[in-house]
Amino acid sequence: MNLERLAESLREYLGATRKHSIKNIVSVFDEKGSNPSFGEDAAIIDRGEEALLLAADGIWDKLMRADPEWSGYCSILVNVHDIAAMGGRPLGMVDVFSSNSQEISEKVLRGMKTGVEKFGVPVVGGHVHPDTPYAALDVAILGVVRKDSIIYSSTARPGDDVVLAIDMDGRVHPSCDLNWDTTYLKEPAIVRDQLSAMVELGESKLLTAGKDVSNPGIIGTLGMLLEVSGVGADVDINLIPKPPELDHMHWLRMYPGMGFIVTCTPENTEKVIEVFANHKLNACKIGKIVSTRKLDIMNSEGERATVFDFTMHDITGLRPVKSRCNV
Amino acid sequence: MNLERLAESLREYLGATRKHSIKNIVSVFDEKGSNPSFGEDAAIIDRGEEALLLAADGIWDKLMRADPEWSGYCSILVNVHDIAAMGGRPLGMVDVFSSNSQEISEKVLRGMKTGVEKFGVPVVGGHVHPDTPYAALDVAILGVVRKDSIIYSSTARPGDDVVLAIDMDGRVHPSCDLNWDTTYLKEPAIVRDQLSAMVELGESKLLTAGKDVSNPGIIGTLGMLLEVSGVGADVDINLIPKPPELDHMHWLRMYPGMGFIVTCTPENTEKVIEVFANHKLNACKIGKIVSTRKLDIMNSEGERATVFDFTMHDITGLRPVKSRCNV
Repeated sequence: MNLERLAESLREYLGATRKHSIKNIVSVFDEKGSNPSFGEDAAIIDRGEEALLLAADGIWDKLMRADPEWSGYCSILVNVHDIAAMGGRPLGMVDVFSSNSQEISEKVLRGMKTGVEKFGVPVVGGHVHPDTPYAALDVAILGVVRKDSIIYSSTARPGDDVVLAIDMDGRVHPSCDLNWDTTYLKEPAIVRDQLSAMVELGESKLLTAGKDVSNPGIIGTLGMLLEVSGVGADVDINLIPKPPELDHMHWLRMYPGMGFIVTCTPENTEKVIEVFANHKLNACKIGKIVSTRKLDIMNSEGERATVFDFTMHDITGLRPVKSRCNV
Repeated sequence: MNLERLAESLREYLGATRKHSIKNIVSVFDEKGSNPSFGEDAAIIDRGEEALLLAADGIWDKLMRADPEWSGYCSILVNVHDIAAMGGRPLGMVDVFSSNSQEISEKVLRGMKTGVEKFGVPVVGGHVHPDTPYAALDVAILGVVRKDSIIYSSTARPGDDVVLAIDMDGRVHPSCDLNWDTTYLKEPAIVRDQLSAMVELGESKLLTAGKDVSNPGIIGTLGMLLEVSGVGADVDINLIPKPPELDHMHWLRMYPGMGFIVTCTPENTEKVIEVFANHKLNACKIGKIVSTRKLDIMNSEGERATVFDFTMHDITGLRPVKSRCNV
């Protein structure tokens, strides 16, 4: 395995580089860099003892062109993950659907309906454009979390362990080489239970930080967490569970159907892994948080390569709120 | 004035006919027709004493192509109206922005920022697609309302007066012939105060129903309210205030910057008009709710024409929840 080539591929992968523009948008709405919601999977709205979580996700137009029904399904999948990532419970979703054909509409709606039934979160409203020259689907989700149980992305600390939890019982999705689908063919009760692992971990205060693994893949998602936490990590890629039929170059760029990257103090690592295991997620320690603001990957041969040096590279370009104030 | 021609034009206007596809989507997510949120400006999520309001609105692609900055502004304008229409207060918004050029992005974001500053509602998160072949902007909004003060669209009753409240101090927007802009050039304090009229009316229980005037225009919006209320209305179009430089055909298809159609029992009509007037909105009675499921327009010459016969025509195709159960 050429570790340098792998590191470069993960850095330059479109799933990660597409996140570069986030900084420009956030700088418009958060000029002072003082809103801690930016960089999190969902925005936090304080309502007394509980906090509301509000997130939005859109379907990548490439995926929509490749498979409208799978796109509809994924629009639900990714949104429920944004709430789970924060330790929250979903309440409902709204969608904006722009369509250019009856056939595509039917497929997208069929996929959304499958997702709604799978995850048990209702679509309660939305907006439709029946006549656009393109097909596009955006979904927003509302969730709720106990204020003392929120899992943030931006709170990892040097010395923490990095734990990956992922469902290995899956398949490369027939329509999308980079989707590791683990939910579509699985019972609703199982996938809902998997998501609830994060609620349990939030409420038990076992984590220091966490995030759901999304388009940037396992390493890219960890990178986003490090970026807003203002820290780095050493990751041993040989510790990352991997389907034997896939090589690292492929696997580490995949969007898994159910995956979380979390951090915790070392004395809690075993407990965290046990909670995930109780919810049918394969979990293991894959690395350590370090104070140097770099994400390095290592292998069992003792080689090391830097994927992201946050003093030079951006993923989202967001930084910890305190330092963002000084930008 | 040819009343029949006007009625036909209002019925066949794209702003109204684009709403036809709503029924197909709602039937996917609400098979039993039992969710009263559909057909309302925002979905209602019960949280004890208060209710959360969740809505989403997308920018019509025609508008985006015509004026990206105005589109950005309107994405905020339409969302804050969805919350005001229900008698609620906005808490925050998330957006999904798909962009195909740096220039368009800058314009859209500038417009959104102007809207955020005008209406005082923050964008707290979102998602960005930096590389789509089209530019599209969808925004979702979260609001809150006292559960006993919600203003519904579906609760107008025969015998009620129909009151239109609208800001006449405006201009035809330079980029869009069908936008009656009354907010862009106005002080934030004034437009926020105008929106809060609906909160006051909700809490004072003076209304039986209400809705913000949107793309289908004054008559089309009233039509949507009648459709889900299972009633009809007689409207005297000579009672509708109108800028002297515009004819009815133009004016009645416009999307006003600040407009609400509400219903109330006749003994409250004067009080309702007074509340709107206190918030700098021109309000007047324009018609009556009737039990016949038709929206008729009349003029001072005593002529009458049917715009919508809901036994034959659909706008959204939604019906009162009880009857939707039987479909």
